[in-house]
Amino acid sequence: MPRYKLVIEYDGGPFCGWQRQSDDPTVQGAIEAAILRFSGEAVRLTCAGRTDAGVHAIHQVAHCDLTKDWRTDTVRDAVNAHLRPNPVAILSAELVPDTFDARHSAIRRHYRYRILNRRSPSALTRAHVWHVPWPLDPELMHEAAQRLTGQHDFTAFRAAECQANSPVRTLERLDVARQRMGLQDEIVIATCARSFLHHQVRAMVGTLMLAGCRRLTADDVADILRTGDKTRCGPLAPAAGLTFVGVDYE
Amino acid sequence: MPRYKLVIEYDGGPFCGWQRQSDDPTVQGAIEAAILRFSGEAVRLTCAGRTDAGVHAIHQVAHCDLTKDWRTDTVRDAVNAHLRPNPVAILSAELVPDTFDARHSAIRRHYRYRILNRRSPSALTRAHVWHVPWPLDPELMHEAAQRLTGQHDFTAFRAAECQANSPVRTLERLDVARQRMGLQDEIVIATCARSFLHHQVRAMVGTLMLAGCRRLTADDVADILRTGDKTRCGPLAPAAGLTFVGVDYE
Repeated sequence: MPRYKLVIEYDGGPFCGWQRQSDDPTVQGAIEAAILRFSGEAVRLTCAGRTDAGVHAIHQVAHCDLTKDWRTDTVRDAVNAHLRPNPVAILSAELVPDTFDARHSAIRRHYRYRILNRRSPSALTRAHVWHVPWPLDPELMHEAAQRLTGQHDFTAFRAAECQANSPVRTLERLDVARQRMGLQDEIVIATCARSFLHHQVRAMVGTLMLAGCRRLTADDVADILRTGDKTRCGPLAPAAGLTFVGVDYE
Repeated sequence: MPRYKLVIEYDGGPFCGWQRQSDDPTVQGAIEAAILRFSGEAVRLTCAGRTDAGVHAIHQVAHCDLTKDWRTDTVRDAVNAHLRPNPVAILSAELVPDTFDARHSAIRRHYRYRILNRRSPSALTRAHVWHVPWPLDPELMHEAAQRLTGQHDFTAFRAAECQANSPVRTLERLDVARQRMGLQDEIVIATCARSFLHHQVRAMVGTLMLAGCRRLTADDVADILRTGDKTRCGPLAPAAGLTFVGVDYE
């Protein structure tokens, strides 16, 4: 059976996350329903990063097998037509060997987190940022972030319901920088790793926020990582600020 | 009476434009109602650019007079609190001399228009772009745009209901460039002038779109301008793609 690799963009706002659930709207459920309406086939998608409720994606990757050998442009356009009016778009469809697995072939996931750091609330990007109205110093946040890169036991930054076998992950990058556009003052956190624990990015961002307002030092953050003491972490950063921005394959 | 200059951001989507109307929701109406709730004063705002229904702003400027000499931070925060849940935010409030007039002191208005130019629809920015699924060449669009800069009679690019005394305007800048972020392929049109006719930016963008897909040459666009022949113009570009991005004062 031909295997199709799909690149997908979605607004996580109206969905209860990627993963199919029996009753609630999910991104996976919406795309599988659109594929069924277009092709008559009930498929199961496998994706690179199963995002939580409210998390967005500009470059999610998933694969599925279809019996028929469709033109890839037809797959893209037909699924998009049947996805309406959901805020989900198939950006591309391509044929891949059946050794390709969107989840298991992935060697690196990329996420971006946006903090709107200004006194006034957001009128234009409120569903895509965390609004933090008190001043944050992105240099202090970046300094603390560097204490989290490398291979560590990330128990402190792991959801209670995380189902990973091991809390050890290798964080390749965690960069914090301010981006100014007029009065739209954003702090953008870019991170990548082979894989992340459940809630890891949002937990790290919440703790870096405390470093940014001098309630934690970089040494404190290193100490939280070392001891696994969740009680000293910052708040879990809201899902709306998080976007899955890409995935690397070998 | 103290005069306050307000810098304002808004999502034009839910509003019938800036200008107050008796029954429909408008940006001016929302802010005036918030000022009334906070200060007890019924004010009338004057703004730099009275945007149409659906047009956004990241840096609108307006002024109003209040009897009481409030702290400017109080004005900003209190109005923002009373604006909720409208997608309107006061970014700053400052005291200005009563010779300052947000509309008449302005010497230059800046607008930006975003076209999402890719086959797939938008999942994340649909309320802020014009989705054009066929290929556009931004270099052809830019070349045609240069035929519109300078002082001209812009009758061809003017709404039937435009109330300006003269159709002559001086277009200082009309630049077209592609911006790529992964598969999010945007064409951004940046323009400024002392003032614009009603629908001028959207009418010019619709015509440039035809230049981008080779249905008009740069000479055709120059000819449309010269003859004032509206029938050869492109479609009026949708309001959602347009954002008021700034205003210059002497």
